[in-house]
Amino acid sequence: MFKADVITLFPELFPGPLGASIIGRAMDKGLWSLNATQLRDYAYDKHKKVDDTPAGGGPGLVLKPDILARAIDDISPEDDPRPRLLMSPRGKPLTQNYVRELAQGPGAVIICGRFEGIDQRVIDKRNLIEVSVGDYVLCGGEVAAMTLLEATTRLLPGVMGSNESELDESFENGLLEYPQYTRPAEFEGENIPDVVTNGDHKKLAEWRQAQSEKLTQTRRPDLWAAYRDEE
Amino acid sequence: MFKADVITLFPELFPGPLGASIIGRAMDKGLWSLNATQLRDYAYDKHKKVDDTPAGGGPGLVLKPDILARAIDDISPEDDPRPRLLMSPRGKPLTQNYVRELAQGPGAVIICGRFEGIDQRVIDKRNLIEVSVGDYVLCGGEVAAMTLLEATTRLLPGVMGSNESELDESFENGLLEYPQYTRPAEFEGENIPDVVTNGDHKKLAEWRQAQSEKLTQTRRPDLWAAYRDEE
Repeated sequence: MFKADVITLFPELFPGPLGASIIGRAMDKGLWSLNATQLRDYAYDKHKKVDDTPAGGGPGLVLKPDILARAIDDISPEDDPRPRLLMSPRGKPLTQNYVRELAQGPGAVIICGRFEGIDQRVIDKRNLIEVSVGDYVLCGGEVAAMTLLEATTRLLPGVMGSNESELDESFENGLLEYPQYTRPAEFEGENIPDVVTNGDHKKLAEWRQAQSEKLTQTRRPDLWAAYRDEE
Repeated sequence: MFKADVITLFPELFPGPLGASIIGRAMDKGLWSLNATQLRDYAYDKHKKVDDTPAGGGPGLVLKPDILARAIDDISPEDDPRPRLLMSPRGKPLTQNYVRELAQGPGAVIICGRFEGIDQRVIDKRNLIEVSVGDYVLCGGEVAAMTLLEATTRLLPGVMGSNESELDESFENGLLEYPQYTRPAEFEGENIPDVVTNGDHKKLAEWRQAQSEKLTQTRRPDLWAAYRDEE
């Protein structure tokens, strides 16, 4: 079973969206588990202080290495095979390939910072893997952790029906998805394109492929270049 | 005031993480507002059906254009100046620049799909801007919408203290952040680097810049190339 642990100052935000829809039902069925731990519980003093001013000066506060190490060691002892991930805009960008790799593993221990940085020494000594969900700045790692776990747990065996899995594979061919249509046949004077509805499956497959290629080329030259390299 | 509307099949997930921390307090203070609307309320039939099989065949279900248009028109009439965003892996990648642009505007209307695609005709006719939070697949647009709103609302005037804003700017210079340290001076036998603590501010600034450059070069050749181009 895929076992997720989250270390956070806001454990009450979990499971939140991770409790909904197919991944929430999968959790109920025991296909994966989620445990959120309050970092503050590992503080030493009565004020439950977990951060301090940055050495050398600068804005913000930095999470103390000793307290975070204590939490990690309690939740994920040295022989825990799960990767320890730190959600951070400095990290390696999350991709569908990495998501697939995580889904094949035993789970993940995820550390959420807030504005503060994290003391570099605990990153090094506990082998934290910094992972970024995108090139923007959030208030903290919690929504990023939800993103990573939602993307990962939907790929676990038994979570998606076969119908949904197929859809997934069609997305994962390196191209953006072609346009979709459904009833009604006419919407505000516009019909579904003939090629989609006239029953010529070969022509439709060609049209969808061409649409995917055009869209990828226009919107994501970076993905298009990678796709062309693999052809 | 920045006004956010979310159209979703899971309105109960909001505000969720958007109600916590500084952005939650900012909402309480009236610096921004969030309204989540149940798409199903705009269905026509008694089964509250919002999707149908894809025209031309294929897995999954597609959101019906007429029902989504009805929800959009109710929440965001033609003269609404807010951008209408559709969270989708096909979309333009969310960046800190785009986040900043959104934060300077009147708000956003955000449409969340689930697995299903959305009928292309409503995307076209309602000028939906497709936005992607990253190159991975989620179960639906809800966590992506939270990501976009968390990144955006933290930049609204009055949300962050001056101390936090500075930190932000230091991140946004196109480089990844340098390592941070805080007390204790020694952690598991490792001291904070001398250059950080010895009080030579010029040397420290040089060291931090060099660390940022090295990290960016190693981890994110793409950001490094963009940074070098701007120099």
